[in-house]
Amino acid sequence: MTTENSHIQAYQSIRGITEALCQPLAIEDYVIQSIDDTSPPKWHLAHTTWFFETFLLTQMLKEYTPFHPQFQYLFNSYYQGIGDFYPRVKRGLLSRPTVEEISAYRRHVDDHMLELLHTLRDEDTTTMNSLLTLGLNHEQQHQELLLMDIKHNFSIHPDHPVFNAIKSTQLVTPPGKLQMIPVAGGVIEIGYQGNDFCFDNELPRHKQILRPYQIATRLVTNAEYCEFIADNGYQTPQWWLADGWDYAQKHHWQAPLYWQKMNGKWFVFTLNGLQELNPHEPVAHVSYYEADAYARWKQVRLPTEAEWEHFTTSQKIKADSGHFMESGIFHPQTASTNEETPRQFFGDLWEWTCSSYSPYPGYKPLNGALGEYNGKFMSSQMVLRGGCCATPASHVRASYRNFYQPEKRWQFSGIRLASDI
Amino acid sequence: MTTENSHIQAYQSIRGITEALCQPLAIEDYVIQSIDDTSPPKWHLAHTTWFFETFLLTQMLKEYTPFHPQFQYLFNSYYQGIGDFYPRVKRGLLSRPTVEEISAYRRHVDDHMLELLHTLRDEDTTTMNSLLTLGLNHEQQHQELLLMDIKHNFSIHPDHPVFNAIKSTQLVTPPGKLQMIPVAGGVIEIGYQGNDFCFDNELPRHKQILRPYQIATRLVTNAEYCEFIADNGYQTPQWWLADGWDYAQKHHWQAPLYWQKMNGKWFVFTLNGLQELNPHEPVAHVSYYEADAYARWKQVRLPTEAEWEHFTTSQKIKADSGHFMESGIFHPQTASTNEETPRQFFGDLWEWTCSSYSPYPGYKPLNGALGEYNGKFMSSQMVLRGGCCATPASHVRASYRNFYQPEKRWQFSGIRLASDI
Amino acid sequence: MTTENSHIQAYQSIRGITEALCQPLAIEDYVIQSIDDTSPPKWHLAHTTWFFETFLLTQMLKEYTPFHPQFQYLFNSYYQGIGDFYPRVKRGLLSRPTVEEISAYRRHVDDHMLELLHTLRDEDTTTMNSLLTLGLNHEQQHQELLLMDIKHNFSIHPDHPVFNAIKSTQLVTPPGKLQMIPVAGGVIEIGYQGNDFCFDNELPRHKQILRPYQIATRLVTNAEYCEFIADNGYQTPQWWLADGWDYAQKHHWQAPLYWQKMNGKWFVFTLNGLQELNPHEPVAHVSYYEADAYARWKQVRLPTEAEWEHFTTSQKIKADSGHFMESGIFHPQTASTNEETPRQFFGDLWEWTCSSYSPYPGYKPLNGALGEYNGKFMSSQMVLRGGCCATPASHVRASYRNFYQPEKRWQFSGIRLASDI
Amino acid sequence: MTTENSHIQAYQSIRGITEALCQPLAIEDYVIQSIDDTSPPKWHLAHTTWFFETFLLTQMLKEYTPFHPQFQYLFNSYYQGIGDFYPRVKRGLLSRPTVEEISAYRRHVDDHMLELLHTLRDEDTTTMNSLLTLGLNHEQQHQELLLMDIKHNFSIHPDHPVFNAIKSTQLVTPPGKLQMIPVAGGVIEIGYQGNDFCFDNELPRHKQILRPYQIATRLVTNAEYCEFIADNGYQTPQWWLADGWDYAQKHHWQAPLYWQKMNGKWFVFTLNGLQELNPHEPVAHVSYYEADAYARWKQVRLPTEAEWEHFTTSQKIKADSGHFMESGIFHPQTASTNEETPRQFFGDLWEWTCSSYSPYPGYKPLNGALGEYNGKFMSSQMVLRGGCCATPASHVRASYRNFYQPEKRWQFSGIRLASDI
Repeated sequence: MTTENSHIQAYQSIRGITEALCQPLAIEDYVIQSIDDTSPPKWHLAHTTWFFETFLLTQMLKEYTPFHPQFQYLFNSYYQGIGDFYPRVKRGLLSRPTVEEISAYRRHVDDHMLELLHTLRDEDTTTMNSLLTLGLNHEQQHQELLLMDIKHNFSIHPDHPVFNAIKSTQLVTPPGKLQMIPVAGGVIEIGYQGNDFCFDNELPRHKQILRPYQIATRLVTNAEYCEFIADNGYQTPQWWLADGWDYAQKHHWQAPLYWQKMNGKWFVFTLNGLQELNPHEPVAHVSYYEADAYARWKQVRLPTEAEWEHFTTSQKIKADSGHFMESGIFHPQTASTNEETPRQFFGDLWEWTCSSYSPYPGYKPLNGALGEYNGKFMSSQMVLRGGCCATPASHVRASYRNFYQPEKRWQFSGIRLASDI
Repeated sequence: MTTENSHIQAYQSIRGITEALCQPLAIEDYVIQSIDDTSPPKWHLAHTTWFFETFLLTQMLKEYTPFHPQFQYLFNSYYQGIGDFYPRVKRGLLSRPTVEEISAYRRHVDDHMLELLHTLRDEDTTTMNSLLTLGLNHEQQHQELLLMDIKHNFSIHPDHPVFNAIKSTQLVTPPGKLQMIPVAGGVIEIGYQGNDFCFDNELPRHKQILRPYQIATRLVTNAEYCEFIADNGYQTPQWWLADGWDYAQKHHWQAPLYWQKMNGKWFVFTLNGLQELNPHEPVAHVSYYEADAYARWKQVRLPTEAEWEHFTTSQKIKADSGHFMESGIFHPQTASTNEETPRQFFGDLWEWTCSSYSPYPGYKPLNGALGEYNGKFMSSQMVLRGGCCATPASHVRASYRNFYQPEKRWQFSGIRLASDI
Repeated sequence: MTTENSHIQAYQSIRGITEALCQPLAIEDYVIQSIDDTSPPKWHLAHTTWFFETFLLTQMLKEYTPFHPQFQYLFNSYYQGIGDFYPRVKRGLLSRPTVEEISAYRRHVDDHMLELLHTLRDEDTTTMNSLLTLGLNHEQQHQELLLMDIKHNFSIHPDHPVFNAIKSTQLVTPPGKLQMIPVAGGVIEIGYQGNDFCFDNELPRHKQILRPYQIATRLVTNAEYCEFIADNGYQTPQWWLADGWDYAQKHHWQAPLYWQKMNGKWFVFTLNGLQELNPHEPVAHVSYYEADAYARWKQVRLPTEAEWEHFTTSQKIKADSGHFMESGIFHPQTASTNEETPRQFFGDLWEWTCSSYSPYPGYKPLNGALGEYNGKFMSSQMVLRGGCCATPASHVRASYRNFYQPEKRWQFSGIRLASDI
Repeated sequence: MTTENSHIQAYQSIRGITEALCQPLAIEDYVIQSIDDTSPPKWHLAHTTWFFETFLLTQMLKEYTPFHPQFQYLFNSYYQGIGDFYPRVKRGLLSRPTVEEISAYRRHVDDHMLELLHTLRDEDTTTMNSLLTLGLNHEQQHQELLLMDIKHNFSIHPDHPVFNAIKSTQLVTPPGKLQMIPVAGGVIEIGYQGNDFCFDNELPRHKQILRPYQIATRLVTNAEYCEFIADNGYQTPQWWLADGWDYAQKHHWQAPLYWQKMNGKWFVFTLNGLQELNPHEPVAHVSYYEADAYARWKQVRLPTEAEWEHFTTSQKIKADSGHFMESGIFHPQTASTNEETPRQFFGDLWEWTCSSYSPYPGYKPLNGALGEYNGKFMSSQMVLRGGCCATPASHVRASYRNFYQPEKRWQFSGIRLASDI
């Protein structure tokens, strides 16, 4: 298969997946935005399309006319270098363009993208390739965001609507005791190495010094987290960062997001509807504050991002080995019972690290407006690693850095423990 | 035609109008709520249906089972006597039930209402009649609310969507000088008199003493209001109530709602899209604070509700003579040129009075939960009279009391002047 | 005594009382502002002084130079006609001018006021007299505000500081059954009548029609109000205006302001410190919403202001007969046991009426900036009548109209019941 | 001199300095709190005293009775391990205890501390010494906070009160061109090394790898920062972190805190009153967002904390060599003209680093409630280094880590540039 063909195939495949993910939605579901953090599904469909239109078609396809003059304003997410953008917290107030109009927009841009991919002269290929790959990775990020946002949008409905009819067949066997694997530390390297795509924030690869540490073989389970709750974890300030304590008090946190107690039993809202809490599944939708408090209560800590990356690469854990979006379950799964094997590093849940999201030494953002993709968010956020059950399997890798503010919980986030030796 | 038949006809007609009003909407338009004050169109469709289900079917139709157990919670607006209700400011966050499901709900309730209307035994008729009439008047109120809310929902879209293709053929002739008609005053009576339907807040009919007053023949026009703006009305605190001044400053008011200046010209957003300001049309979408400030600036005042009602009844102005919803224009019209004739009292725009919305002496609310319909809102609101271009013609009468908080502007409200003699 | 002398005496007396009221304060107490509604005591001392400086000295005393150029800005309360003013909600953020500097300001203005009162030529006397009287009435209003504000400022301190060492010797005898006195109604007159001072909002005297009504002989007691609480009054929306219910829920109201339960017993914070609730005292510091809800629960209502004024004048109840500031107790007293005698109409507690604060027919505000004194507040407030235990006895009269927003509770407000017959 | 005597001397000296700093204050100035971040001066006086009472006297002095039972609640800042505390944002609402009562509190605790220092048995000495030293360092931190908070409290007054009569004699000579000094990098160590006091967050000393870097010889001046303003720095999003841009827009930032333009000239509010901007002084009261944006605009960056510490220790720059609180000027000074000499690293202004405030590898907080001193703030803050003109000279050292949220500006913070080579 020629490169051109593989690009076309990748484009068509990834664009198609986005639309396939939305199949269970009613038209009305595409419109709503339950909190400032989420976006309406139709916005995601349009914004990913806008990305190709803005950074590829209008740059590289001769005589391309944007589909609609207002869309640059409506579907620019945050690129100041491109121009003004519609306020993100008000995305749920716009009924227009309709879902049908956005489908037409997608078809229009897809048609022109295919034209571009077919007709591009050789000398344009390198830039085009890297922008295309960026655009596809961007679309994959929004596939995960779509699932996260739909989950939240549905969660606030008093009827607990079911998005996804596929039921997971969950292991009923407990995953075994959580073990800690010791690692020697030393001068190690982190950051992307290779010739494939990575985001600018994974570079440059650079040395760090690690002290000896140990890291847990699997994620913390619901049952383990319930012990923290039962020990008054949410009422005991000594485990909490000051900001975390204040935030938890103000928002009356008593459990992870999506948990609710009914007649003395915990239930969790999932994309498969409301379900009784499975004690063996990994605890999900915790904030950094909760993950950190849980770790303190266990008298350990969260891993640094360097430890996490060093461990997964030195142990040669395969990035695509985990439980990802492709399973169609959209919910983390119970770890297998091989107690001593490192499990769940990739997929299932993003794992909070105790590392602030900062530029690597020598970091250079992309040029132009695309430099805003990652760099401008490097304050007051924490790094998460490993992907989750809503991440496309091909999207993640050991050096991949995700990031959220420490109070956010609507992403699929979990807890892996670590400690000094 | 028998009474029963006329009831069935009225029911079918009014229910049908509600649905007809929504025809221009896309599915997505039914979902959104642009501000706390508005409701999504699909909520109105469901709530009016809930009203019949709750106050008629579940009370009077044997073995009636509510369409959906959750709807009592979702579509109760504010009747504490019925039970808890979903928070009004979050109505725009619910995608479900879908528009189609709500249509099914309407059909279900309509079918059972027809059954009820056909099968009712004689002895039930009186109560049923008054509840049916209340339900239909309630539905008519929501027809107006639908238009008001759609207007606001559309207005915040940067593209100024057009709801209504029917263009008004506006008079280009100025309506002539605003005249004041003197009235002698004395002991007069206000409040509903007759045997047809009225709301509880229009009763009891009672005596009041009026000093001599004069009242304007027509509404204040855009051109006249522009003089207030040009004279720095929005920058001059002396014309304003203290609360009004603070509110106007905080919200940066410089003109009525829906006005926007482009290249030095005023445009107004209407249900027919964005249009250049017609100077002869009555000024619309003003708050009480603005109406009151304008009147002070003119060294006059707004009429009391007693003056307004006394004038219209003593002059025998017909309530259905004005420009109402049925015209399909949904925008106030220029007054005719008969300078000395009282015009626009009914229809076009609700007219702010300087009367607080208080109970009439001896006022008794309806029994039970329906007592909450009007009575519990009798604080911090002002009375408006006369109906507007979005009100069904058969809905309004001289004694009809509408009411809004003094800062509200999304209703079709205008200014009629009055003064002492 | 000449008029001039009586003016001087009144001026010195009233100015002196303001300062005497502050004697128990430490310097630090003069600075704080516990909520937006209250002002720091030193602000009251300066603002009342500014009033004389602004409306008398700078107008009428030749070559008078204001004490400090910044004070016009700092101590103007809300007179837009005078110029900009410092934001009221930030008054507690200013440590300067110090209390000592404000004392110097008072002495400076007092010296010049005496000069003015001595030297004024005859032709200036009328205007000067009315402005002087207004200024003194204004100062008296701030005497009450001082006590109200100090009470609130102190109340939020966890130590419950005692302002006033004088203990009341409260009646231990219950005030007897609450009786309702029937009144015939008819065409009556309200509004100030006479040649002494009144505020512009008490005019013009005008006719109203009253239906037959009855009015309670005394205020509602704490014991009676406790029955409402015990009957879940604060948990039962049916008694409440919609705005009141929402406000009460949002602010978690469970009892009047200043009540707190300790070990199952109610205590109330007073200017004499925290005291066990005396069941026979009138219930104080209730909002309009609570007063109205209590009345509905009792199946009666609050009086209109016309009923209240008509009753007190027709019954010839003396305005200065009540329990006022001069007693030095600053707390309402138990009614005497003469069950059938109208009691507590003047003094003790301001009585909520069900009348919105609106202009009387034909109302004319004062000219110039002083027109802002009362008129611009005529929206969204309710009228209270009769004065309270913090009001100077000479300040109040039957036609006196006080007004607060319906949610306010920090004023000394109570409940008198009335009903239709 | 014996250790005991030196302790007594240190205690008396540092406690005395706190009080001396407050001498210019009027009683009223001790009460106010201009923003949530600041505390009333009297609160600082009491809280530092509470620290000795709580962590020394009640632990170690037999039969010690706290001065006032409520003070543990009122003057605990944030130690959850000690118990509940009064909300920090309401500190300015308390007039009591008065300044005089707090003085009595200080004398009481001082007397007992001297008793403790005299009578302590040998075996108690080590713990006592370290707690005493901690308490004195804590008091020194509050000396700086006192000056910062007074500055802000005074700054919002429209009259620009002068706190400090001592005028600085500022250099009128520009400090010369800003030079960058290259440093080789490599494996280096940071963290406290030695036997004297340090805070827990300076430990453990540990290795880091530094790439080659260069660092500026002096702080950025007002003149240099004005170029950023003139180049529309505050209107150009590309220089800003996303959070910073949003914050700056929301708060309408156009210049550093305390700057105001009058008749086209910049003035700055200082503890010596309002002064014309001296272009040669270092720019002060900038947030991290502004410091970072300025650096990006200059195409460089801020130093990491490791670079900063490495540079100052490897260059043997003396920590007490700078311009500190003891000068009595309380305002940063112009750098000397030795262009190539590293200047202003200690004193003048805290220097923002681009390092998030995170625990050092192997960090252990102090035991018990004192563990809350530093550790619980390790999220969403940035590290600053070097002390400022309000810091006691003996308080700071090369390894000292200060920290603030990136949007804070009321601390004395400035900008030192660095870059990769």
